[in-house]
Amino acid sequence: MEKRIGIIGAGVAGLHLGLYLRQHDTSATIITDRTAEQIARGRLPNTAAHFALTIDREKMLGVDHWADPQYHYTCHNHSFGGGPTRLEFRGTFTRPSRAIDHRLYLPKLMADFEARGGLIEVKAIDTSDLAHLAQRFDLLVVSSGRGMLGQAFARANEESPYDRPQRQLLAALFSGIRRTDPVGATLSVSPAHGELIDIPILTFGGMASALLFENVPGGDLEELARIRYDENPKGFIQTILAKLEQHHPHIYNRIDTAAFDLCAPNDILQGGVTPVVRRSILELAEGKFAIAAGDVHCTVDPLLGQGANIASHSAVILAEEIVKDAALDQRFCERVSWRRQERVLAASRWTNIMLKPPSDEIMDLTLAMSHNQLLCDEFTNNFNYPERQWDRLASAGRIRAWMADRANKAAVAA
Amino acid sequence: MEKRIGIIGAGVAGLHLGLYLRQHDTSATIITDRTAEQIARGRLPNTAAHFALTIDREKMLGVDHWADPQYHYTCHNHSFGGGPTRLEFRGTFTRPSRAIDHRLYLPKLMADFEARGGLIEVKAIDTSDLAHLAQRFDLLVVSSGRGMLGQAFARANEESPYDRPQRQLLAALFSGIRRTDPVGATLSVSPAHGELIDIPILTFGGMASALLFENVPGGDLEELARIRYDENPKGFIQTILAKLEQHHPHIYNRIDTAAFDLCAPNDILQGGVTPVVRRSILELAEGKFAIAAGDVHCTVDPLLGQGANIASHSAVILAEEIVKDAALDQRFCERVSWRRQERVLAASRWTNIMLKPPSDEIMDLTLAMSHNQLLCDEFTNNFNYPERQWDRLASAGRIRAWMADRANKAAVAA
Repeated sequence: MEKRIGIIGAGVAGLHLGLYLRQHDTSATIITDRTAEQIARGRLPNTAAHFALTIDREKMLGVDHWADPQYHYTCHNHSFGGGPTRLEFRGTFTRPSRAIDHRLYLPKLMADFEARGGLIEVKAIDTSDLAHLAQRFDLLVVSSGRGMLGQAFARANEESPYDRPQRQLLAALFSGIRRTDPVGATLSVSPAHGELIDIPILTFGGMASALLFENVPGGDLEELARIRYDENPKGFIQTILAKLEQHHPHIYNRIDTAAFDLCAPNDILQGGVTPVVRRSILELAEGKFAIAAGDVHCTVDPLLGQGANIASHSAVILAEEIVKDAALDQRFCERVSWRRQERVLAASRWTNIMLKPPSDEIMDLTLAMSHNQLLCDEFTNNFNYPERQWDRLASAGRIRAWMADRANKAAVAA
Repeated sequence: MEKRIGIIGAGVAGLHLGLYLRQHDTSATIITDRTAEQIARGRLPNTAAHFALTIDREKMLGVDHWADPQYHYTCHNHSFGGGPTRLEFRGTFTRPSRAIDHRLYLPKLMADFEARGGLIEVKAIDTSDLAHLAQRFDLLVVSSGRGMLGQAFARANEESPYDRPQRQLLAALFSGIRRTDPVGATLSVSPAHGELIDIPILTFGGMASALLFENVPGGDLEELARIRYDENPKGFIQTILAKLEQHHPHIYNRIDTAAFDLCAPNDILQGGVTPVVRRSILELAEGKFAIAAGDVHCTVDPLLGQGANIASHSAVILAEEIVKDAALDQRFCERVSWRRQERVLAASRWTNIMLKPPSDEIMDLTLAMSHNQLLCDEFTNNFNYPERQWDRLASAGRIRAWMADRANKAAVAA
């Protein structure tokens, strides 16, 4: 059968899907409300890290444009306050991760997509356009939730425990932060106030630091999500430095305060994300379906960097099924949903529990990771495999069993 | 963790599960309401065929006691009435199937299970016993639905389209039927009246024929589910022969009427099955679960012989997860449910649509199979892979796409 695929949204999900389809000679049209130039000139959209499995997919799709090791990082540094001394430890990835400013990344992939015969149409789409689009395409993939479109897919209440953001966010690109050695991302925790993630990232001006402040509502850091850089750049920077020194000292210690500033005035994003999982199938007309992907399917808080990675994972599953299946019907949608649910739901659930105050077992696990390298490296690699992480963390019994097993292995190895 | 597994029911699901657990040094107790001797002496329980994938599992479990080719059959013969001439064609399995009277099979596997350290307790269990059993075991598997126990698991309405049996059944073991050459099972259809499946089967007296009459309620064959052999053996046999001659002539033609009789007076089972899929997870106590397996999880009409095969498939998935998982909690139950749902639900849905009057596409497919060997062999092998069959049959578009693709392949090969 001829398969004409309409994709709403030019994010990671839409582009990885479109690129795979073009690799397999399948008709793909991406509809986006912004041109590649508008995306490139726009505000910082996120601080997404791509883990090794996502980089594997980029290689497979022929869009691994950032293979140079200088763009990669190899570990997660952890820094926990709250005790008599800070708990510091490092988990090493089996294979490196990288973060590329999506204002570089997405336009590059849009150009790749067009060069390979993909069509890009620039226009805003809302729910009232779906019926018309159902006539143009054999399947509609909705991966952008701008406007009301995402809400056409019903909320999956059993997978959506929150009705408001659990963190007030400040994400921005900074100069003046020395990298760790070895180069890694750093996750610093200030109990009751929030987390800070420091990610080496390729920007328009070269390598810099993305700081993602995950601020607990009501805590001492919440104001970071509201103070305005453009109203008072120096005051903004002074406030950030003061908060860093108090709450995230190991990151502060790597800052050259004279050089510390936003890389550019629009390299900043503030706000909050309400995590949600949505039912992903919508019948548009007799036998014609829309399927949700990316953030429309599952929105996670950025705390654990899962969003872009599960979007890419799901996009390739969706693409594989489109290429190989004989019909784009209810059964097709079911197969896609079944294949992607394990990883996507695990990423969502894991992120959601990490937004809560830590349980005794999570506290014990953190302590155990600080002196058990096997455990800590496994935790770190599982950023690629959230379903494995969830198998370890889904209940107190699982966390205890994991710690006990790895403690035994460490003892045997010693 | 120590894992003490309690299994209610000594059918294929309970025994394959128990045998796998004992292979992996896991504690397993089967609780059944009948001893092996009582099962062996009892009434015919079914006419289950084991397809190649089930035989593979039997090999893996070390219970492949019937490897001699004389017990196997290699094809499905099809015979469709209703047209000006009967439609006759044969699909060949890639690897053979076999049917062993479960009154031989189950007691042999019970002995294997006990010889390998499994415990068998003989007593009737009902819902009120579950709380007590939750104290004895870390996980309870409910694979026998006798009494009210099965109904402790809620009906999954979206997968259970029927509220009563769709066929009135007569299953019995007969002497006096010549085998086909090559040896195969035969599926004969008398439109509006029902199907007859003739299966070569190993009985206590050697190889014989299992006839499974699937009679449409209100049709000319329905009475076969009610007439009593023990009240009038000769009249019973005369009625059967008359019905066979009229409705299933190609099976009748293989009968030596002088030798045609039940193999033994209790080699007969009559009644009807209401197909049902049940939610398979029940929390018994804080963190302690019961999970449904076998017929309790999914009861299918025996038309397509799926029951024992999906029971075995699910049992081994359940066993693998028990052995490898760190906890027998909600997450464990979810993983089991996700892994087994594709095949089990496909077997259920495929069987359920074949109980309905055939659609135009199913009629066309039948005709196409009669002159396209590739298509017919694929349909036949898919008795092992109901999820593949469902991918072909789930919608009119899928059936048409399958026929078109295989017609092309046949044309290219010619």
